[in-house]
Amino acid sequence: MNAKQRLLHRQQTISSRLCVGLDTELSKLPSSLQGNSHPIVSFNGSIIESTSMYASAYKINTAFYEQYGESGWVDMKKTIGMIPNEVFTIADAKRADIGNTSSAYSRAIFDDLNCDAITVNPYMGYDSLAPFLEREDRMVIVLALTSNPGSTDFQRLISNGKPLYQHVIETVLSWKASASIGFVIGATHPDELAMIRTYAPDEVLLIPGIGAQGGDIDAIMQANANGPVMINVSRAIQYAGDAADFGEKASEAAKYYKDQIGYYS
Amino acid sequence: MNAKQRLLHRQQTISSRLCVGLDTELSKLPSSLQGNSHPIVSFNGSIIESTSMYASAYKINTAFYEQYGESGWVDMKKTIGMIPNEVFTIADAKRADIGNTSSAYSRAIFDDLNCDAITVNPYMGYDSLAPFLEREDRMVIVLALTSNPGSTDFQRLISNGKPLYQHVIETVLSWKASASIGFVIGATHPDELAMIRTYAPDEVLLIPGIGAQGGDIDAIMQANANGPVMINVSRAIQYAGDAADFGEKASEAAKYYKDQIGYYS
Repeated sequence: MNAKQRLLHRQQTISSRLCVGLDTELSKLPSSLQGNSHPIVSFNGSIIESTSMYASAYKINTAFYEQYGESGWVDMKKTIGMIPNEVFTIADAKRADIGNTSSAYSRAIFDDLNCDAITVNPYMGYDSLAPFLEREDRMVIVLALTSNPGSTDFQRLISNGKPLYQHVIETVLSWKASASIGFVIGATHPDELAMIRTYAPDEVLLIPGIGAQGGDIDAIMQANANGPVMINVSRAIQYAGDAADFGEKASEAAKYYKDQIGYYS
Repeated sequence: MNAKQRLLHRQQTISSRLCVGLDTELSKLPSSLQGNSHPIVSFNGSIIESTSMYASAYKINTAFYEQYGESGWVDMKKTIGMIPNEVFTIADAKRADIGNTSSAYSRAIFDDLNCDAITVNPYMGYDSLAPFLEREDRMVIVLALTSNPGSTDFQRLISNGKPLYQHVIETVLSWKASASIGFVIGATHPDELAMIRTYAPDEVLLIPGIGAQGGDIDAIMQANANGPVMINVSRAIQYAGDAADFGEKASEAAKYYKDQIGYYS
C-alpha cells in the first residue's frame, strides 16, 4: 500500500477522519506531571493511549520539540515510537530548501523520525520538493491555503486570474511524484475549500484550524464534498483537561471531534 | 548595537562581506577525520579556525544537522559555540508556521542555538513571522528570490504588475518589526538584484549561489550597487580540500572569495 492507501485504510478501520495534533509544551502540562523526569514523553504517551482508538493520524509539530534542543528531538522520536504502527504519522515541519538540503530534511523526517508524511512549503518550487516527492512510500503535504490570518498576505494574490494557492495546487499536481500528494487547507476557508474540490476532488487534504483556531466543522465537511481528508485538532484535545484525569478528558474530546467530523458517506 | 549594526561592524573590522556556509555532511568529510569520535564538530572547528579571519558571518543550514537526529542537534549547538562572538551567525532554517508555533521556532533558533539571524519563508504571511520580527536584537532574513531553478515556479508569478518576490519584499518592509530585516536573493539573478536595489537600497541581502551553484561574483557585485550584503559560499570553501590539509585549503578558498567579493566602495 502507498501512503494514501495506508491512511485511507486506517480511516476505514476505525471510521474516523480525525487527526490528533501533538504540539506539546512544558508550560501547558498538567501539574500532576510536573515532577516527572520525562514529562513530555509521559504526557504524549498518555494522550496517545487515550486517543489512538479515535485517531486516523497523529500530527507532530516539530517546532514544539526543537524549542527544547537535542532533548526535544529525543522526546519527539520517542513520541513517534509510541504511536501504534497502524496510525498514520505526519511531521508538521513545513520544510523546503534547495535540492541537496531538502534531501537532508527528507532523511531527517522520513528516516531518522520515520514519519509517514511531512508538510512542506512550496515557495521555493519544484526542485526544493523533489527529494520528498521521490519517496514512493511516503506522503508529501504541501501548504496551499493556511488557516492563519497571514494567509491573505501572499497566498491570495491573483496571477493570471487565479490565486497563488491555486497555482500551487495545480502546479504541484502537474509534477512527477512517486510519493502520495496532499495539501494543507485551513478550516477557516470553507468557501475556498468548496472551489478547491472542483479542481482537486480526490487529493488528500490536511485541514487544521478546528478547535482553538475557530474553524466550523459543519461548514468544512459540507464544502469538502466527501474528498479524502484529515481534520486536525491539537490543543482542544491535548489540553482538554489539566488535572490528573487529563487522559480521560483527551479521550472524551477526541471522541467528540471524531463524531462531529463524521465519516465519508 | 542592533543585529544589522553588529553585522556591518564585523564587516568593517575585517573588510569582508564573505559569509561561510557550514553545511557539513559525514559523507563529505576528509578521510583523516573518519575515525574521529565527533567528526562533524572536529571538522567544523578546523574550518572555523581556518576561515574566521575572513568570515563576516557563518551560515549554518539546520537540515544538515537534523538529518543526524539528536546527535546532529548537539553537533550544531557545539559548532555555533565554537564561532567567535564577533562573527555574525545565521541559522539557515527557512522556518515559519502559525503564530504560537513560530514562537517555538524562535526560541529554538534564537535561545537554544543563540544565533544572530534566521532565514524564514514568507508564504504564510505576517503572523507567521511576527514572533521572529519581535526580537529586537536579532535579524530576520526573508526568502525573496532564491538561487535554485524552482524559483521560477511561484516567486516570479506576476500579480498587479509585480512578481511575487517583489510583493514579498515590499510587504515585509511595510510591517512593524523590532528585529533587523534582510532578504535572500540568489546569486543566479543579477538583473533582478539590480532592480531590487532600486526599491530596497539599504536592506541587508544574503546572497547564496556562488561557488557550487555557479553564480557570477562580478555580475552580482555590480548589480548590488554597494548595498549591505553577505555573499555566502558553502561547499567551495568547506570542501576545498579533502586531504589532511583541508583546513589550509579552506583558508585559501575563503581568502580567495573574500578578495573576489571585495569591499564596499
